[in-house]
Amino acid sequence: MNPTPTSSQTFRAIDVIRKKRDGGELSRIEIESLVNAYTRGDIPDYQVSAWLMAVVLRGMTRAETAALTDAMLRSGEVLDLSSLPAKKVDKHSTGGVGDKTSLVLAPLAAAAGIVVPMISGRGLGHTGGTLDKLEAIPGFNVNLPVAQFRRVLETCGCAIIGQTAEIAPADRKLYALRDVTGTVESPYLICASIMSKKLAEGIDALVLDVKTGSGAFMKSDEDAAFLAELMVETGERMGKQVVALITDMDQPLGNTIGNALEVVEVVEVLRGQGPEDLRQLCLELAGWMLYLGGVSDTVAEGKKQSGKLIVSGEALDRFRQMVKLQGGDPQSIDDPKRLPQAQRTMKLSSSMDGYITSLQCEQVGTACVILGGGRERKEDSVDPAVGIVLHKKLGDAVSAGEPLATIYYNAEARAVRARQLLEGSYRITDSPAHEKRPLIHRVIGKPGEKN
Amino acid sequence: MNPTPTSSQTFRAIDVIRKKRDGGELSRIEIESLVNAYTRGDIPDYQVSAWLMAVVLRGMTRAETAALTDAMLRSGEVLDLSSLPAKKVDKHSTGGVGDKTSLVLAPLAAAAGIVVPMISGRGLGHTGGTLDKLEAIPGFNVNLPVAQFRRVLETCGCAIIGQTAEIAPADRKLYALRDVTGTVESPYLICASIMSKKLAEGIDALVLDVKTGSGAFMKSDEDAAFLAELMVETGERMGKQVVALITDMDQPLGNTIGNALEVVEVVEVLRGQGPEDLRQLCLELAGWMLYLGGVSDTVAEGKKQSGKLIVSGEALDRFRQMVKLQGGDPQSIDDPKRLPQAQRTMKLSSSMDGYITSLQCEQVGTACVILGGGRERKEDSVDPAVGIVLHKKLGDAVSAGEPLATIYYNAEARAVRARQLLEGSYRITDSPAHEKRPLIHRVIGKPGEKN
Repeated sequence: MNPTPTSSQTFRAIDVIRKKRDGGELSRIEIESLVNAYTRGDIPDYQVSAWLMAVVLRGMTRAETAALTDAMLRSGEVLDLSSLPAKKVDKHSTGGVGDKTSLVLAPLAAAAGIVVPMISGRGLGHTGGTLDKLEAIPGFNVNLPVAQFRRVLETCGCAIIGQTAEIAPADRKLYALRDVTGTVESPYLICASIMSKKLAEGIDALVLDVKTGSGAFMKSDEDAAFLAELMVETGERMGKQVVALITDMDQPLGNTIGNALEVVEVVEVLRGQGPEDLRQLCLELAGWMLYLGGVSDTVAEGKKQSGKLIVSGEALDRFRQMVKLQGGDPQSIDDPKRLPQAQRTMKLSSSMDGYITSLQCEQVGTACVILGGGRERKEDSVDPAVGIVLHKKLGDAVSAGEPLATIYYNAEARAVRARQLLEGSYRITDSPAHEKRPLIHRVIGKPGEKN
Repeated sequence: MNPTPTSSQTFRAIDVIRKKRDGGELSRIEIESLVNAYTRGDIPDYQVSAWLMAVVLRGMTRAETAALTDAMLRSGEVLDLSSLPAKKVDKHSTGGVGDKTSLVLAPLAAAAGIVVPMISGRGLGHTGGTLDKLEAIPGFNVNLPVAQFRRVLETCGCAIIGQTAEIAPADRKLYALRDVTGTVESPYLICASIMSKKLAEGIDALVLDVKTGSGAFMKSDEDAAFLAELMVETGERMGKQVVALITDMDQPLGNTIGNALEVVEVVEVLRGQGPEDLRQLCLELAGWMLYLGGVSDTVAEGKKQSGKLIVSGEALDRFRQMVKLQGGDPQSIDDPKRLPQAQRTMKLSSSMDGYITSLQCEQVGTACVILGGGRERKEDSVDPAVGIVLHKKLGDAVSAGEPLATIYYNAEARAVRARQLLEGSYRITDSPAHEKRPLIHRVIGKPGEKN
């Protein structure tokens, strides 16, 4: 916490609310005073929610967004990882369906000599969460104290934990209020929330994976690009190297959705196998991490190096090591039967010949939530075993009777509902779609790229 | 209270907030559910303040404004004055400096045979309040229970009291929240607040005096006209006859500011004397009240009739009667020395020859607050004796050394500060201003006017 005694003496929340309401630009001191006073409990929720709504509708300048990020960041502890000589680089995704890249990237970049101090989140609504996926591994502990987090980083170069009470407490309080006051949907507030938590990790550089499409929070490329630019500029204003990749989330990433099923697919990718889209995106993001981490001279070289670390088995070794250091069963990596298993499976078959021209991503994610593999509300518990394996994705040809997907379930009634939803999410037509969406739509912010 | 059980079962505040945030039009049921749930305490302040800010920035349609007014009105008791055969007509002013017309109009219209059930407010900030002025009369009680209010109305045709707990409780709760969340400044919310309280009086018609100029809440004619149109249409949608006069508040109304001093000026007007601007505005507003009350066929005739009721002494008689029925000392009407008297006076004289070309109205009002005659905050008490008498107003010629104003005070230090402010509020130039602002800028909504 960094209170500003001189300013808090004259600070009145009502003045800051009015100024933003009338479209004015708030000063760094005004934003800092508001955030600090709210975190201390000196101003009530009802004033802050009015201010948040004014921000949603009036927007913020780049300077205001950076000031808000900074105030939220400094409301708590900022990790000091300067004792570790390597560059600290993290990756953050805005969330999607089947997005398990973090589990691949942390050990992969660590194997290349980078430190990846990843503080991650849980799934909510149709999107999954990294912590839930890791907890599918028996014994894996995502709630490490900071000292132990640091020890894991020192030993294997990567660690993935949940948010601690010390990191950005202002964000936790503000997010809880935004959630119940219709003020989540603002790129400025989303940017400040994400960047304050990521920068509290003590990183040098950050690779952002901003999703776009039917399964993403940002449905259009324009909205995704706007948020990406905002985050890149905010990070740069705070002295960090930041790049954002706008990537496709118009269908699930990879073929599995559901926590244990996704861990299996992660291991496949770390073995050089697995679905092409997931593998490609992991290599692309890893390329950027290695480049920003100073391990490779270009992104292309970073990709090549990442590929080698997979072929050599070093990346998978690193994953096994991290799992073990965080209390998980390393044997489950090589023997998927040790992961939680669903009792039964159910097939969804195609009713016609044709081509997959649409695969409603949000519905697939929701089908997994219905099975018990995700959360409707924060307090829900998650069944790690259940989920969906997709056999057909966009552009694929399919014959009548051929399986589209397999549902892994523990409760019949849920499986029936999930299958209905899944069936409705596939659109099959006589001829294939003309256009294929690229995996990487755009790259925003190219910090000193040579390639 | 009028809860809607069928709708409240499915009502979620967050949905209503989001809809307004995104610029949607809320249904009558959505608005009613929100207002009722908030009044009952079923939804928290922080959700309502976010909604209020969305209303401030997104606005409301006419239908939404009427629905909000109606829900607030029906949150409490609506007076049933149908046992009184005469038409019930009230006047409401948006507030200004030296605006004492209510004290003239209630007895004047009552003398013409109309019932005036006036529920009024207190002064706040630079503007004065009708209740404070009345309380300058020794013994005058503005806190009558509804049964006694009705008896006074039956006996003398007019009564002026403060808001009771039974009238529009939703407005009281919402206003307190708006006051601390920067959401006062919305014509839609102002309209619903005013109209819900006025329509709860059980009136047939309403004359609105919407002020414009340096001393008014609405500084421009456009803003004043927008609010006036909103209130007229809202009243009409609710089956009432409503007219709004946009009147000048670029300088104080009449020559006195300060509670006891204003009562003296009211009595002067009721005797056919007093300053021209105040007299003219009272006759204009009375003309409309008599016309809408069915006592005169035209507004012009209503004005003429009002003039006669002043000359005959009937209006003043009615004032004496109301004062007596509400516990006040009727002798103080004829002997101003019985009203609270300030201990000392101080003159402000002109430093130059010239013409008054500007008289900053808000500053004059603030000077009176500094003397103790008004309130900075709601909980402040008011000194009824202090105030200001203006000897020169806009357009007047003045010689160096000639008095501009007299300050009536009880505390020297306050008087000195008030004089400084007052001095700064006069602008004197060599030649008179070309244009003279009219007293009545516009009339909005002419319900069946024949003149």
